[in-house]
Amino acid sequence: MQSYHVTRESGLTLREHPVPEPGPGRVLVRMRAAGLSFRDLLVLSGDYPLPVRPDVVAGCEGVGEVAALGAGVTGFAEGDRVALTVFPDWVDGPFGADRAAQLGTALDGTLTEYAVAAERGLVRIPEHLSYEEAAALPLTTLTAWHAVTGGRPLLPGETVLTLGTGAVSLAAVQLAVSAGARVIATTSGPEKAGRLKALGAHEVIDRTEHPEWHVAVRELTDGRGADKTVHVAGELADSVRATALGGEVAYVGFRVGDAPAAQPVDARLLFGAGAAVRPLAVGSRAQFTALNRALTVHGVRPVLDRVFPFAELPAALEHLGAGRAFGRVVVSHG
Amino acid sequence: MQSYHVTRESGLTLREHPVPEPGPGRVLVRMRAAGLSFRDLLVLSGDYPLPVRPDVVAGCEGVGEVAALGAGVTGFAEGDRVALTVFPDWVDGPFGADRAAQLGTALDGTLTEYAVAAERGLVRIPEHLSYEEAAALPLTTLTAWHAVTGGRPLLPGETVLTLGTGAVSLAAVQLAVSAGARVIATTSGPEKAGRLKALGAHEVIDRTEHPEWHVAVRELTDGRGADKTVHVAGELADSVRATALGGEVAYVGFRVGDAPAAQPVDARLLFGAGAAVRPLAVGSRAQFTALNRALTVHGVRPVLDRVFPFAELPAALEHLGAGRAFGRVVVSHG
Amino acid sequence: MQSYHVTRESGLTLREHPVPEPGPGRVLVRMRAAGLSFRDLLVLSGDYPLPVRPDVVAGCEGVGEVAALGAGVTGFAEGDRVALTVFPDWVDGPFGADRAAQLGTALDGTLTEYAVAAERGLVRIPEHLSYEEAAALPLTTLTAWHAVTGGRPLLPGETVLTLGTGAVSLAAVQLAVSAGARVIATTSGPEKAGRLKALGAHEVIDRTEHPEWHVAVRELTDGRGADKTVHVAGELADSVRATALGGEVAYVGFRVGDAPAAQPVDARLLFGAGAAVRPLAVGSRAQFTALNRALTVHGVRPVLDRVFPFAELPAALEHLGAGRAFGRVVVSHG
Amino acid sequence: MQSYHVTRESGLTLREHPVPEPGPGRVLVRMRAAGLSFRDLLVLSGDYPLPVRPDVVAGCEGVGEVAALGAGVTGFAEGDRVALTVFPDWVDGPFGADRAAQLGTALDGTLTEYAVAAERGLVRIPEHLSYEEAAALPLTTLTAWHAVTGGRPLLPGETVLTLGTGAVSLAAVQLAVSAGARVIATTSGPEKAGRLKALGAHEVIDRTEHPEWHVAVRELTDGRGADKTVHVAGELADSVRATALGGEVAYVGFRVGDAPAAQPVDARLLFGAGAAVRPLAVGSRAQFTALNRALTVHGVRPVLDRVFPFAELPAALEHLGAGRAFGRVVVSHG
Repeated sequence: MQSYHVTRESGLTLREHPVPEPGPGRVLVRMRAAGLSFRDLLVLSGDYPLPVRPDVVAGCEGVGEVAALGAGVTGFAEGDRVALTVFPDWVDGPFGADRAAQLGTALDGTLTEYAVAAERGLVRIPEHLSYEEAAALPLTTLTAWHAVTGGRPLLPGETVLTLGTGAVSLAAVQLAVSAGARVIATTSGPEKAGRLKALGAHEVIDRTEHPEWHVAVRELTDGRGADKTVHVAGELADSVRATALGGEVAYVGFRVGDAPAAQPVDARLLFGAGAAVRPLAVGSRAQFTALNRALTVHGVRPVLDRVFPFAELPAALEHLGAGRAFGRVVVSHG
Repeated sequence: MQSYHVTRESGLTLREHPVPEPGPGRVLVRMRAAGLSFRDLLVLSGDYPLPVRPDVVAGCEGVGEVAALGAGVTGFAEGDRVALTVFPDWVDGPFGADRAAQLGTALDGTLTEYAVAAERGLVRIPEHLSYEEAAALPLTTLTAWHAVTGGRPLLPGETVLTLGTGAVSLAAVQLAVSAGARVIATTSGPEKAGRLKALGAHEVIDRTEHPEWHVAVRELTDGRGADKTVHVAGELADSVRATALGGEVAYVGFRVGDAPAAQPVDARLLFGAGAAVRPLAVGSRAQFTALNRALTVHGVRPVLDRVFPFAELPAALEHLGAGRAFGRVVVSHG
Repeated sequence: MQSYHVTRESGLTLREHPVPEPGPGRVLVRMRAAGLSFRDLLVLSGDYPLPVRPDVVAGCEGVGEVAALGAGVTGFAEGDRVALTVFPDWVDGPFGADRAAQLGTALDGTLTEYAVAAERGLVRIPEHLSYEEAAALPLTTLTAWHAVTGGRPLLPGETVLTLGTGAVSLAAVQLAVSAGARVIATTSGPEKAGRLKALGAHEVIDRTEHPEWHVAVRELTDGRGADKTVHVAGELADSVRATALGGEVAYVGFRVGDAPAAQPVDARLLFGAGAAVRPLAVGSRAQFTALNRALTVHGVRPVLDRVFPFAELPAALEHLGAGRAFGRVVVSHG
Repeated sequence: MQSYHVTRESGLTLREHPVPEPGPGRVLVRMRAAGLSFRDLLVLSGDYPLPVRPDVVAGCEGVGEVAALGAGVTGFAEGDRVALTVFPDWVDGPFGADRAAQLGTALDGTLTEYAVAAERGLVRIPEHLSYEEAAALPLTTLTAWHAVTGGRPLLPGETVLTLGTGAVSLAAVQLAVSAGARVIATTSGPEKAGRLKALGAHEVIDRTEHPEWHVAVRELTDGRGADKTVHVAGELADSVRATALGGEVAYVGFRVGDAPAAQPVDARLLFGAGAAVRPLAVGSRAQFTALNRALTVHGVRPVLDRVFPFAELPAALEHLGAGRAFGRVVVSHG
């Protein structure tokens, strides 16, 4: 079997290994597809803010079928369609330092033909999704789920604001619609606006027409602002300005290179706006299970931009890095 | 103007009055429609469990247009389409003894041509609803909203169970669908089953085929049970049996006459099932506002069974009492 | 080493075994003390409502020191003072069927000289507690913690009601005091009343003087009732009557033999009282850790009635079964 | 009667008026004491960030006794000891634009001999407090209550961090102790440290010895950080650095003049720390009632620095402005 490893010298290196045996409580998964994300680009370029174990297997998102069971595994059977969770120790409850070890940095990841996972680090994937679609779940879709359904509870009819057409934002549009929210999305250009509306967004604000898009959000909400804003990129201050008194900015992260090293936010703005800012990181296994149930009930499918063969991972990463994808870039084992 | 009063001797009595003047902080509303409910039948028959002020104006649900403003009222203008809240002192937060005075029992109610309400006891009604439709909101639709969105938070994809085709249950189907839940409804007969499906129910259990309907609920949920059950009538024990470990029975009340005076539930069943039982009463003004926002975003309309003229209130009550209505019975001022 | 096993024929049987080796991810614990509870009596008498694996090692509460580490264990070191969690798979989040396997019924328990536990089924015990004191934590103290701090949030100054002097109730008094609540306790006789006050109870109601003790609770709370009632025994209906509108009955269970097989509660009482009834089961590892932090900050020590040597387990169980203990009955390995 | 008014020309002006009559639903209060705060200094200097109605009666904190009842008032009687709530329209639930009118800016305030308040804008004050002590409740003590008990729920044994010896911080120490938290306070100098310990703080960090006090907080919490930080002044970034992953910075405001107009916080720090930042404003009437219950159960008294006669308000404000008070500055009507 082959695995892509993260090496300090050359970035990505393909290696040949024997297929491993799963130990007690562990499961051998024959990988079928893996999602790629900006996180992977950061890890490979050496810019990821957390330590990366030398020679670790790359990738944090991956799905496959159960190929063999270690002793004592009772929750899965051979042939089960499963996803690996990004944080195998984060079973339930809030995030914490004791559950922060993640695939592809501290632990061997998903860009491999076979992976071994702890039983509690696996979840079944929804039946209506292909492996390629399900490969989009563990990182970006689960992050969007955490943003939309975690923290401040969201009532049907409340307003969710999403920013742009990154993978988390697209998933947030879909999931916020599933939750009965009114969704306002920002983007640039009529084509993307149309695609956001097709995903269910109720209103789309074109940033090229409304550079002060937070003003447009206020106008669409009788001056109130969004009840929940999923902040993924750009100026945090603008997301705060677009969010209601008593609302929440679910703070998912920032894109590589779209902001200077320090992005200053005026503390007085944070106070005056009266919205809470809640940083969050992906989600727990329990949240993943709840996400899958929602995807199944609503028949939601992650948006894919392009699927590459596993052997063409370098090309896939290059495509992702070019920044023009609408939806996920995925590698498939065919 | 005319008002229907609750009198000890004769039940319902129509009286003539001059149109009142609204005092400071109060609003004169020209009533346009009023919803009727089992609560009204109980009040009129003398069986309501709470004290009824002698000669009080009947009715707790009503909508109309603002006809005149008392001194200091700033939140409304003449012509505004409004509903009276059932508990005018319950503005926000949880229910409590200090906010329990209700229309049609302690306070003059809605079965009148003109009503005077405190400014904080009014909410605007959604634009897409007729007065007759909006007359269904203050008691039954708001109760369903409280059941579905209050207490245990409901995630999209979780299961809501509704019982039968009473007004609260129909609204609960609509609102649970709006919240992204999977909805299982019980009923009897294929015709009602079809109407429940048309409202959005994902599955309908026919109690005539499944007298042990809680078993059917377990089967539809892989043995788990409903995450939230809106209990309106019948045996509480059966609702508990149908609800998941960690789920919630939102306990809305019981119908007149469908249970003996004491309905025993085995405390060991309550413990063993592991579901919380949460009694609730209608909702606050803040919840009403949130409900209206959700109705607007989703274009939901309350189900009406039949509209009677205000002058035919006795016939309307008789129709309601016959127990065959599917949806609300409403009187309209035309 | 020796272990007490649950056998169908003779109840409790002492057996000799070799000391086990901990497998990967597992920890060998040299047991130092174990708590005994009514649950153990039920298991041994064959009356426990859940299946008991034949020949399982008895006991669900136990503490000791780490004697050896299996491969890959990083969170503990030899000599660490630890408790086993009753539900080793319940790490965090709400209870559920996937985390319900418990020590002493489905899994080998704590009445043994050496136990092997999964790393995630262990927590460190507070430094200020002896092993005998810490043996009271895993079942009864954690249940009290879940009752007091779980479910409906408890504000300082709110009222917690405890019933009698069973082990969960004593712990609930201590923990509710730690949480800043006003504590009302019921009991019978001035001696127990004095001991409850010494534990921090603000008021004690003597049931021999107030058989209608729920009336006394109302009188002490200006008619409001308790904000949270920890129901452990007796009539659930009385606990409901003693609890405030909007309050919560944290329903911990019932004592053996103190109620008929079916204990009927009038569903109309449940509705009219307006308090939620929340059944609960012990608690998660995360709750155990939070409990230990609170015990440490407040210097709280579980109340012990009597400590028996491990060899005298039968006598210890007999003492427990006599029902006169004030505080925990514990066996110690010396 | 006399009232201090806010005038554009001269700041504070004392005027003579007839004693007003309370209208329907309103209550005449003979004022007995009023708290002074930095907010008052900002209003008088013209630096308050919200509009101030010309000639408004100054002051937002005040207590007194009920002198006369308007028509329809049932909740109070003559002689009742009451406080005015800062936001008379904020009865319960979250803050919002519809409940933001406040005393002393939009509405006539408390620096007067007689005030008229809406019935729902009054709460009874605890019996164990003098009027001068109770004058500290409506703004600063209630803000501290909201910070400590609102937002992220606080478990007994969790850590609360307070900053300095401003009035909100002193109240936060007292209330966090009442809630069973472990309290870490920062200050400068051994004398203030001693006074903070006397109020119940478990540990005090002297900023003169630990300019990087957030490092000291981490050391005292095994690297974890505070579970809740009450941020009142200084650099928000430092409070974020001192707060645990999954913790909360309850953001109460900032002192006049202690920060430049724009206080930049690095958005990446906010994200990386993983603590939510929650701005908050005082509290609702329902929160005030809950606060009073806690103060009563725990016998907590607000810390007073100095009491001035009503006639010496200018001197009292000057004393406050000098910034050396430890506890509240209050004016009393004697």
